[in-house]
Amino acid sequence: MKKVGLALLGAGTIGSGVLKVLKENGEMIKNREGLEIEVRRILVRDKNKKRNIPVDPDLLTDKPEEIFLDESIDVIAEFMGGEMPAFQYIRDALRQGKSVITANKEVIAKHWDELEDEARKSGAGLYFEASVAGGIPIIKSVRRSLQANNILKFMGIINGTTNFILTRMSEEGRDFADVLAEAQRLGYAEPDPTADVEGYDARYKLSILSTICFRNRVAVDNIYCEGITKISADDIEYARQLGFGIKLLAIAKKQNGKIEARVHPTFIPLSHPLYAVRDSYNAIYIEGDMVGNLMFYGRGAGDLPTASALVSDIVTACQNEGAHHRTRLDEEAVAFEKDWKDEYYLRLVVSDKPGVLAEIAGILGRHNVSLDSVMQKLRGNDKATLIFITHEAHEDWINGALTEMRSHPSVISVESVIRVER
Amino acid sequence: MKKVGLALLGAGTIGSGVLKVLKENGEMIKNREGLEIEVRRILVRDKNKKRNIPVDPDLLTDKPEEIFLDESIDVIAEFMGGEMPAFQYIRDALRQGKSVITANKEVIAKHWDELEDEARKSGAGLYFEASVAGGIPIIKSVRRSLQANNILKFMGIINGTTNFILTRMSEEGRDFADVLAEAQRLGYAEPDPTADVEGYDARYKLSILSTICFRNRVAVDNIYCEGITKISADDIEYARQLGFGIKLLAIAKKQNGKIEARVHPTFIPLSHPLYAVRDSYNAIYIEGDMVGNLMFYGRGAGDLPTASALVSDIVTACQNEGAHHRTRLDEEAVAFEKDWKDEYYLRLVVSDKPGVLAEIAGILGRHNVSLDSVMQKLRGNDKATLIFITHEAHEDWINGALTEMRSHPSVISVESVIRVER
Repeated sequence: MKKVGLALLGAGTIGSGVLKVLKENGEMIKNREGLEIEVRRILVRDKNKKRNIPVDPDLLTDKPEEIFLDESIDVIAEFMGGEMPAFQYIRDALRQGKSVITANKEVIAKHWDELEDEARKSGAGLYFEASVAGGIPIIKSVRRSLQANNILKFMGIINGTTNFILTRMSEEGRDFADVLAEAQRLGYAEPDPTADVEGYDARYKLSILSTICFRNRVAVDNIYCEGITKISADDIEYARQLGFGIKLLAIAKKQNGKIEARVHPTFIPLSHPLYAVRDSYNAIYIEGDMVGNLMFYGRGAGDLPTASALVSDIVTACQNEGAHHRTRLDEEAVAFEKDWKDEYYLRLVVSDKPGVLAEIAGILGRHNVSLDSVMQKLRGNDKATLIFITHEAHEDWINGALTEMRSHPSVISVESVIRVER
Repeated sequence: MKKVGLALLGAGTIGSGVLKVLKENGEMIKNREGLEIEVRRILVRDKNKKRNIPVDPDLLTDKPEEIFLDESIDVIAEFMGGEMPAFQYIRDALRQGKSVITANKEVIAKHWDELEDEARKSGAGLYFEASVAGGIPIIKSVRRSLQANNILKFMGIINGTTNFILTRMSEEGRDFADVLAEAQRLGYAEPDPTADVEGYDARYKLSILSTICFRNRVAVDNIYCEGITKISADDIEYARQLGFGIKLLAIAKKQNGKIEARVHPTFIPLSHPLYAVRDSYNAIYIEGDMVGNLMFYGRGAGDLPTASALVSDIVTACQNEGAHHRTRLDEEAVAFEKDWKDEYYLRLVVSDKPGVLAEIAGILGRHNVSLDSVMQKLRGNDKATLIFITHEAHEDWINGALTEMRSHPSVISVESVIRVER
């Protein structure tokens, strides 16, 4: 029986989850995996704070070096969150030859190359399944089950908070601000919800996952990012009438030798498997050139789903000792596509006069944008709402058309511009 | 660079898929995985048959021992299908210390213990991701990503043919025989469709997957099996009115220390993620005690999705050489639950007389079966259709009630009895 000394960096919600998994299923892991995992140290900021975790207080320490230099520690699990000091701790631990398991999306998105380098040098393992989509084993699946595939594309719902908000808006016809306030009351959204609702959280995860999929570093700076704060109940209702739902998607594609990566609200058909992903669930819909389309669905956050991924990585790290799996990036760097093509949903308020629809459609046509469908609704007060779904168009074609529309005398306002994927 | 000698047993559709993957993505696999896979022999029944595969005819052989005794062969991929002679070939190859990758659900369902034994003795690897759900990496995910979980339950759409048929019936209001004939014309169903439509194919896969999930041998004989031949367009329409869809599910649960495993048509809510799995797609919805619900979705068959899984296993087998992963079954054997509980959908044709509904509901009540919902439809000719969704009830309660109903003077026929899962 292999015995493994584990140290935890952090003793909050996720830490309690890891302790619970080891307490309840440790015996099962021992029998099935031949591995006895023993928690030997826990790093905390304040040793004297009262805690609800069922753990010997003697294990607590506030000195990271006590952990990194402790010979009885083989593996370190980090889930403090934030870039600093987590990055330094992970680096120091790897330098000491300790394998590191982390749930830290920000550190991995920003520093993976450097950390992977340290790991190679010391022979330690570096695993971060929990950093993307919580309990869903997407990273290991891409690395260890899709080796035969050139990944062409994926679209992911990888932020549970925004998916919860959009689901409530969609199913109850409510507005963004209203649902956000409820989500905050329920603890599904942070008091400062910026990182979630502006897409920054999803962008870190997209950076990691697209790097793994395309074997090319996709830095956060190369990812376009737009949040869901401007989505209205009206847009969701019009979407439904047109056969679509609205989701915040993290999208990455590799085509014509270029990578494009972006986070933004997206129309997807009601029949798309991603549309059925409700509430705070996450899912990644991924296309390989050989396997076709796959989808991975599950809990993207929460103490126990995250702990499930962390403990799985701990087991993997111990079983791979001496032969840790390394993800090789391709030698040839791939360029980034900035001028991507998409279909668009456009919603305008215009003066209700004869010929306006033809004039607006004419503007789109002059900018090479052709139309898939058009809807016109009277609003009263001599106003009308025009709704278009375009065929595929370049960003700059759309932007050119929008600029011209905004200065057209009959256009009162351009209310919404939302991309469409199928 | 590690060079690996591969032999293929079979040169049909799947074999062509494997050759295509290696031809198109072999260079990528070499660069990313550090592994050069070379096809060195291909076992065929008739060496002189004309073939459409792009391969040196000198590689073809009709003598299996030429492969098993060939020192230049490290790994053998089998996809001949059928129990014999595939089982003997796999066993012989393992005895010679060759790792075996197989897509053969029947052989693994029936002979895994013996083959695993041979593999352990010779130190060879035995991998069979492609035997369940084609391109979906469900076996590796359960084995290598869910180690921290006690798997409580899963429900799978693991037969593409029947899912295609049920999807067409559901979306086009057509009858079983009609859609089956179309599926046969299109090549989605075999000329003899028995193995698919009676659930036998799904039962082999369920046997393998439940054994892996519960770490207890779930033999085919322990699995209840019922096909989709009796599902009518009427049932599908009534299901929709009640908020359900009908899918052929492979279900396995472990509760109160017992395992239950069964394949049968099932009502699931329209909002369930499995309902969105359309056409020939497969999906497995699985619940772990820590990770909660996960779903894995993708192509369950086809040359390239199957080849994707086979080649992934080939890479894994080569990288794990000397330390092949073995799935340990639990030492304590678990009993099988035969008297499971379920909710039920019942459809009866009765005489349209006052009091009939109350009498039938009374029969159900006397057998402890309580009702979730009731629907009554007039049919003309003094007949009415009664539809019930029951609360959870034991099989024998339902059977008792059905026996009594069938002999009730007002009951003309019991048309349908379909289980409900949520």
